[in-house]
Amino acid sequence: MTEQLRLSPIGYVECAAAEATPRDGWEEIESRVVLRSDLAGGLEGLSGGRKILVVFWFHRSDGFELLQHPKGDPTRPKRGVFTLRSPRRPNPIGVTVVDLLEIEGNVLRVRGLDAFDGTPVLDIKPVRNGKEC
Amino acid sequence: MTEQLRLSPIGYVECAAAEATPRDGWEEIESRVVLRSDLAGGLEGLSGGRKILVVFWFHRSDGFELLQHPKGDPTRPKRGVFTLRSPRRPNPIGVTVVDLLEIEGNVLRVRGLDAFDGTPVLDIKPVRNGKEC
Repeated sequence: MTEQLRLSPIGYVECAAAEATPRDGWEEIESRVVLRSDLAGGLEGLSGGRKILVVFWFHRSDGFELLQHPKGDPTRPKRGVFTLRSPRRPNPIGVTVVDLLEIEGNVLRVRGLDAFDGTPVLDIKPVRNGKEC
Repeated sequence: MTEQLRLSPIGYVECAAAEATPRDGWEEIESRVVLRSDLAGGLEGLSGGRKILVVFWFHRSDGFELLQHPKGDPTRPKRGVFTLRSPRRPNPIGVTVVDLLEIEGNVLRVRGLDAFDGTPVLDIKPVRNGKEC
């Protein structure tokens, strides 16, 4: 169980949310996903006006607890980390469905990505019927 | 851009699909996600009858191409890897929404997980409204 798997970012998030923002205010935030230029060819066939799934690395997260208060709210009873979207998880991977607004070269302009400026991006995937991941 | 990120599996998939199966026949396949026993506490609050998102490692995948035929079908024109669910991607991460049938201790019985026997599991996340990831 000590197997180590290695990843390299395919790009990084650029957005204005460099500091903590309201936990529920991400829906309208616009960000840029700047892909490594050598991977831009992998965007062939994608265009704005659809949803995509962004897999990213919670680079500010350090450690985890098995039981956590939902949204860090101490008035709510603790629950298992696998029932939460908390960044404090055994593998600090985030997965979010976002609106793809536009692609320009190796830059994807998206809305609704709950990731801070500088977040490493691990993958981009299609979403079908707005719900399949 | 050479940043290296490290992951350790939180568990492994057990299922009968040790060999290649029809690419579109996964919906009805039942599998077991066997979590590391020290992480079982993170399942607190989860129970059968809902959907969950499983993040896993395409452990049989080796390398990638930026342009690929959808579902490996040479009669279909190649598209960018980021428009496909192909396992041959820069970071071999899979993300699938599955039906959680039952939890017993550290074992999750699920339906619809398109992962072979022995697949390392990286994360389990909640799905809200059947569509949010």
